[in-house]
Amino acid sequence: MSVARALLERAGVPEEHARLQAEVLVQAELRGHASHGLQRLPRLLKRICNGLVNVSTTGRHSWQRSAYLHVEGEAGMGPAVAIAAIQALIARVPETGIAVAGISNSNHLGMLAPYVEQVAEAGCIGIALSSSEALVHPHGGAEAMLGTNPIAIAVPGRPGEPFVLDLATGIVSMGKVHDHALRGEPLEEGWALDAEGRPTTDAEAAKAGSLASFGGAKGFGLGLGFELLVASIAGSAFAPDVRGTLDDRHPANKGDVFIVIDPARNGLADAIAGYLDRVRNARVREGAGRILVPGDRARSRRQEALAKGINIAPALWSRLSGPEATKLFSLREEGHPS
Amino acid sequence: MSVARALLERAGVPEEHARLQAEVLVQAELRGHASHGLQRLPRLLKRICNGLVNVSTTGRHSWQRSAYLHVEGEAGMGPAVAIAAIQALIARVPETGIAVAGISNSNHLGMLAPYVEQVAEAGCIGIALSSSEALVHPHGGAEAMLGTNPIAIAVPGRPGEPFVLDLATGIVSMGKVHDHALRGEPLEEGWALDAEGRPTTDAEAAKAGSLASFGGAKGFGLGLGFELLVASIAGSAFAPDVRGTLDDRHPANKGDVFIVIDPARNGLADAIAGYLDRVRNARVREGAGRILVPGDRARSRRQEALAKGINIAPALWSRLSGPEATKLFSLREEGHPS
Repeated sequence: MSVARALLERAGVPEEHARLQAEVLVQAELRGHASHGLQRLPRLLKRICNGLVNVSTTGRHSWQRSAYLHVEGEAGMGPAVAIAAIQALIARVPETGIAVAGISNSNHLGMLAPYVEQVAEAGCIGIALSSSEALVHPHGGAEAMLGTNPIAIAVPGRPGEPFVLDLATGIVSMGKVHDHALRGEPLEEGWALDAEGRPTTDAEAAKAGSLASFGGAKGFGLGLGFELLVASIAGSAFAPDVRGTLDDRHPANKGDVFIVIDPARNGLADAIAGYLDRVRNARVREGAGRILVPGDRARSRRQEALAKGINIAPALWSRLSGPEATKLFSLREEGHPS
Repeated sequence: MSVARALLERAGVPEEHARLQAEVLVQAELRGHASHGLQRLPRLLKRICNGLVNVSTTGRHSWQRSAYLHVEGEAGMGPAVAIAAIQALIARVPETGIAVAGISNSNHLGMLAPYVEQVAEAGCIGIALSSSEALVHPHGGAEAMLGTNPIAIAVPGRPGEPFVLDLATGIVSMGKVHDHALRGEPLEEGWALDAEGRPTTDAEAAKAGSLASFGGAKGFGLGLGFELLVASIAGSAFAPDVRGTLDDRHPANKGDVFIVIDPARNGLADAIAGYLDRVRNARVREGAGRILVPGDRARSRRQEALAKGINIAPALWSRLSGPEATKLFSLREEGHPS
């Protein structure tokens, strides 16, 4: 965390924004999602060096209506812009009950879970959607037309144990495909197509191709629905025209949407916690392990990581903390798709 | 449609509410979803005869906050209560931009698609969620703990061609399992467990068991997220405690949620239509047919059905329209799970 903050501050990022950005990257590591963790830092630093990031803005807020905030991201850092928007929504819902923010032209958020978790900690329901470059093909299609289009939902539960769901509508992330390619391992069948649109388990071939949606036609429908919601609410680009989250050359023009709801029901968190326990304690299938609900695994990973430390790939660590780190501020490099 | 209306009016349903209810059932038939069509009518009539439905209410509205409507459904008819809530939201969003309604204690809605489609026709984005009896087991679990928990999303597009997504997070409906049982056909592997929690392709065994989520662990997470959203926002029961959409003995205590958003962007519908055309015209996989986006298939089925008529099972038709119809108002019968 301190290494990430120091590098960001060295790139000219104000202290508070460096803290927010480092926190988001480290939270992903703590939850076991290295693909959204510190490996994103070199590209971000390069984007800053290349003048693609306004490190000090929190976005320009304009309330279109009393519960509808539009945020012009002004090329700001993803976490700084998002947190400011979420705070504005949390401040607004005592009056309106629900409020939505559409953010355009802001940089990459990283994992969505930490954002909605903050909303649940404030006693509200949080929903987040975010768009990206085209990486996922339509059901029956042979080329990428959709982002991986994640959704995150957080609902207050027992103190310190909110329900936190964070999933992409793509079957896997493109980062996972890159990991398999690096390790020379085949992909599972059904994950990806090559550049010609043929099914492939060759990770190298898939890097130039496209990913399936999870859950077949239904997952495709959901991913497309989320794509339309983000573009409509944020006024941002559609996936085939999105740039700037996987490269270090283009301004970011994807969109983010946050919805905050204050259900204001006494005893709601206890009722949620009680129901989630019933689900966890349901009869299990023969041979199956414990039933987990979204948030459980991330919480136990985080507790373990806080006790034992996180495992950063040595090559990444030496890039970030060794004498090599200087190169982060000089070299232009190709991005790693996520 | 006129048969359904006549039966409902004979059961004492006011003309307008009979029209709304018949419209929802017939819309499902026109879209090719018989499971949500006229086969629901006998149970509804029985529920009315059994005093479980207040046929004249549209629900008691209370605005908790300026954009948050709670509707006490007062055992009203699902469509009558839902349409009144949606109209209130559409009337509110010019001021607030987004508004949500949580409906408790109202009867079954039928398909969600026609509701959100009305929102899109009014130029807004519509999102709908609804809960139900426990029919779906947790990922790794052996007993039902979740409803089939559908979501519907509609976004305005070209005139008469909104994007309309309507999908359940269960892999199939329990109605489909009953259809297979009636026809003596096996289920596909992975759809269902029997009452002891063992995987089964025997439709009869599955009727007493539970359904999988679509898309494995991700679909389970989504279904659970939707379960929590509905219960939190509507203040309704969790699936294991829900009664009254599959029987004719209990008051309905599930919940429904509608969100209406007015993005108020000039040219939005054209931009959506243009992007959807790019998706439809993407390269297709070898052997795959045309790429369809949600709403396309339902629209073409409806056009065909309006031209050629709909195909109602003869046994159902004679129950609804023949001399047998009188029995609908006297016999207490077991419900068909959906």
